Amino acid sequence: MATRDSLTQTPSARQEPFVDFRTHPDHYRHWTLTVDGRVATLTLDVQEEAPLVPGYELKLNSYDLGVDIELYDAIQRLRFEYPEVAAVVIVSAKPQVFCAGANIRMLGNASHAHKVNFCKFTNETRNSIEDATEHSGQTYLCAVNGTASGGGYELALACDDIILIDDGASAVSLPELPLLAVLPGTGGLTRLVDKRRVRHDRADFFCTTSEGLRGQRALQWNLVDALAPRSRFDEVVRARALKRATQSHRPADATGIALTPLARNLEADRICYDTLTVDIDRELATATLTIQAPAKAAPATLETMRQAGVYWWPLAMTRTLDDAILHLRLNEGDIGTWVFRSEGAHASVEAMEKVLIEQPDDWLGREVLLYWKRTLKRLEVSSRSLMALVEPGSCFAGLLLELVLAADRVYMLDGVFEESELPPATIRLSPLNFGPFPMVNGLTRLQSRFLSAPEHAAYLQTRTGEAIDAQEAEALGLVTFIPDDIDWEDEVRLALEERASFSPDALTGMEGNLRFAGPETMESKIFGRLSAWQNWIFQRPNAVGEDGALTVYGSGKKTAFDKRRV
Amino acid sequence: MATRDSLTQTPSARQEPFVDFRTHPDHYRHWTLTVDGRVATLTLDVQEEAPLVPGYELKLNSYDLGVDIELYDAIQRLRFEYPEVAAVVIVSAKPQVFCAGANIRMLGNASHAHKVNFCKFTNETRNSIEDATEHSGQTYLCAVNGTASGGGYELALACDDIILIDDGASAVSLPELPLLAVLPGTGGLTRLVDKRRVRHDRADFFCTTSEGLRGQRALQWNLVDALAPRSRFDEVVRARALKRATQSHRPADATGIALTPLARNLEADRICYDTLTVDIDRELATATLTIQAPAKAAPATLETMRQAGVYWWPLAMTRTLDDAILHLRLNEGDIGTWVFRSEGAHASVEAMEKVLIEQPDDWLGREVLLYWKRTLKRLEVSSRSLMALVEPGSCFAGLLLELVLAADRVYMLDGVFEESELPPATIRLSPLNFGPFPMVNGLTRLQSRFLSAPEHAAYLQTRTGEAIDAQEAEALGLVTFIPDDIDWEDEVRLALEERASFSPDALTGMEGNLRFAGPETMESKIFGRLSAWQNWIFQRPNAVGEDGALTVYGSGKKTAFDKRRV
Repeated sequence: MATRDSLTQTPSARQEPFVDFRTHPDHYRHWTLTVDGRVATLTLDVQEEAPLVPGYELKLNSYDLGVDIELYDAIQRLRFEYPEVAAVVIVSAKPQVFCAGANIRMLGNASHAHKVNFCKFTNETRNSIEDATEHSGQTYLCAVNGTASGGGYELALACDDIILIDDGASAVSLPELPLLAVLPGTGGLTRLVDKRRVRHDRADFFCTTSEGLRGQRALQWNLVDALAPRSRFDEVVRARALKRATQSHRPADATGIALTPLARNLEADRICYDTLTVDIDRELATATLTIQAPAKAAPATLETMRQAGVYWWPLAMTRTLDDAILHLRLNEGDIGTWVFRSEGAHASVEAMEKVLIEQPDDWLGREVLLYWKRTLKRLEVSSRSLMALVEPGSCFAGLLLELVLAADRVYMLDGVFEESELPPATIRLSPLNFGPFPMVNGLTRLQSRFLSAPEHAAYLQTRTGEAIDAQEAEALGLVTFIPDDIDWEDEVRLALEERASFSPDALTGMEGNLRFAGPETMESKIFGRLSAWQNWIFQRPNAVGEDGALTVYGSGKKTAFDKRRV
Repeated sequence: MATRDSLTQTPSARQEPFVDFRTHPDHYRHWTLTVDGRVATLTLDVQEEAPLVPGYELKLNSYDLGVDIELYDAIQRLRFEYPEVAAVVIVSAKPQVFCAGANIRMLGNASHAHKVNFCKFTNETRNSIEDATEHSGQTYLCAVNGTASGGGYELALACDDIILIDDGASAVSLPELPLLAVLPGTGGLTRLVDKRRVRHDRADFFCTTSEGLRGQRALQWNLVDALAPRSRFDEVVRARALKRATQSHRPADATGIALTPLARNLEADRICYDTLTVDIDRELATATLTIQAPAKAAPATLETMRQAGVYWWPLAMTRTLDDAILHLRLNEGDIGTWVFRSEGAHASVEAMEKVLIEQPDDWLGREVLLYWKRTLKRLEVSSRSLMALVEPGSCFAGLLLELVLAADRVYMLDGVFEESELPPATIRLSPLNFGPFPMVNGLTRLQSRFLSAPEHAAYLQTRTGEAIDAQEAEALGLVTFIPDDIDWEDEVRLALEERASFSPDALTGMEGNLRFAGPETMESKIFGRLSAWQNWIFQRPNAVGEDGALTVYGSGKKTAFDKRRV
């Protein structure tokens, strides 16, 4: 983060910080998680002197990626470790200030890639807050007990109940445009007009008024849901949280499972987890992610699932993939293509997921499904080409088949490898392919795939559980190409070499447009429209040039904008 | 177009070509328009030696803005001058090649602003082709009688019937990504997956395969609608056009109206049309567009509308605004804010639009409504801040009120100006505010405005025809602020000064996100998601840097991509 992209900078000159997304409440520096019966509280108290990398101070509860990694960890733990929690209050420990948003010095110093990755991860974390509110019975409330600016207010916008302290001073604001010449990049614009349905002209005024709005006007314009004076603030927040908690389906008496530290072994070109191996080919700019099915095909029950806890294969596998995606995004930026492979028996995967299908109302099973859903979404909004290879010995069934359906290109071997005794590859559909894993556009991957023929997507439901070979998979439209043994190696290698030769930027733009046909949701708007504009602005001299607003921020120098409208 | 944006270039160093969008078939250099009964043919025969500005040759039917201005003019004339035309065939006059898309040399030399404006206009023209097919009873067919690459195939995608010559050589392709490191920027990606619903993995293969697909495979993948051998090509195209024509509601026996040359007087800081005056304040970076209502309030009839033809006020006014928008976009890039004012009597506007409301099936009236709809859309996708001032003497009624509803900010004077005898300003709703002018998101401006309260949008329908004063307009949510005489000048001036002080890029991004809440359509995806990504790519070193693909194209030099994925 110490350097800046420029036209002349060579790849080798870049220095990006190594980022580890694994943490634990014992190591939090900026957040405190406390639980009191049905209500949990996440208290933000950013340590100025503890930025992710040296070079800036995290004043006024402003955040960087390090602060957000802790928030993400806390949200995950609340889901899995605290089944009894039904409402979560986010509040600041600092007097007068709730949160000043993303740290500007950090943004000013960061490379373009880091800025984009930072925004993407913070967006995903805010989306996961909404996902918890909507699907997990954990409603997030935001106790804005001081001024919430920029990303601070955007964090509030991700919560379903915003209570603003009515002290004549505390305001909510989105000052990015007037102060920094960039956009509120964490969903603020979209949530204002799409979630809170603030009138477009009022939103325009609000987003161009750096001091923001407070009190009655903020309430009238629907920027917040409630006001409370300082004397009654905690009481009002607590009452609203308890009320939300009564509407929750979270079990009050279940036992959570501990998210123990995730074991990972990093080598130069290989990353090993318990259920996943990542092999990096730097010349091909490709990472091959091989997922290992569980060794035994013992059918899971609620009992065995709970006992295994974090080691239960579907959960363990999701955790490792989640970590791998984040690691590769931040720390392996030059690796542009991710290839998915799998090893094991279809029956093992199917035995594991049976309990998820048959007991959809179990809180833990639901969390596993939701986590896999979010991980698949994270995968698809990663700016990487996604390929899947379906070979003999693979086990793309049910939830693993979603990786095939998510891929930009799927190669499935027709027949067997000459030197191998493994039977021909097959894939298998399961009920999990028809509902619980919507994409960011709100459709299942099969619905998105067969937009032109919804009846075909429905027909496939009659084929669940069948072993579908390459010829049939191609006929059913489930895979792209089915080379045989003779062509396989050349065809796959050529595709990967070709991919590596293309402009990474153009691929990112193309994939971002082709992957999400059909309807739009707030999420798809945030990752498509909002992020694309923000990324553009992050490249413009008016923001990042010598006299750009992000560059000169805090230096006393004045910005000099090129006034041409583009 | 001779210069290129760069970090170091100052505004004054830029040299943009002056562009005039007014033309006539007599002056076409690249297109021929012929009409044979119910079927018109637009033949593309680009003159290599006639680029819009010197510096490149328009080989292989490639196009620049000049070529597209003629196409736009022809489409408009077909609507108004040829009521009998019910199907339009686009075909190439060149052997072997249909169209090679946007000219690469032109793109390589153009400024960022010109590239963006060029893409926007070509997108609008392709959208207007679809609008004619869907709403005007003029179905566009594309006779791809040679290879259609990039923008050439995107032009075909805008047509509702694509017939590809099956000669073993002619292909359709989108080679932008593999050859040029940019996106197909004229809706190609969106139309592939959203309009033609091509499977995402197939679209991925197609868009990364520079030679494209031909024959049966192109048909099977739904890239084209029909194949025909050379010997029967013209006959098949003709038959399909005639069949489409039989389904049209266009009158076979009506008389068209001539789109005579548009009178315009350009002064240094003022542009005068018959029904519109544009005043430019360069210090404020503001253009004030004052629309004059018709002088007389004589109720229009179909008869008087036809007789007046192109001089009929609603049509004349639409034409002038359309031209003004395009002129300001291309030739006044530093003027970032457009302020709308109006002068005249509400009754005059209402008298004129009465015939449009009462005779919705008349072909000419329909065309006037559709043209106003498209012009409002053009306004909203312009990267300019839109303000409206509602003052005494103004006449924002019915169709003109749409300009108020489109604005990012509306100021309406509460009361009268001290020195004036004019009564307080009012605005008036009409049935035209409730249907015929959907925005690019498919909703009316009132529906978009009141997303949070659909019942309020419906209630407003009961208030049509009423004179609504400032207090009432504010209470109804139709205007943003209602300063009185004492505050008016300061408040408006402050808003304009403030706007002029902001980063133009951030404003463009913000407005592009706030204006279009609610659902998405192919159009909103093209202008939101696709264009935003393309604009980003157009700024990236991998495309426009010293070794970027657009820069080195045709030079024999190799591209050197920064491989980092962002």
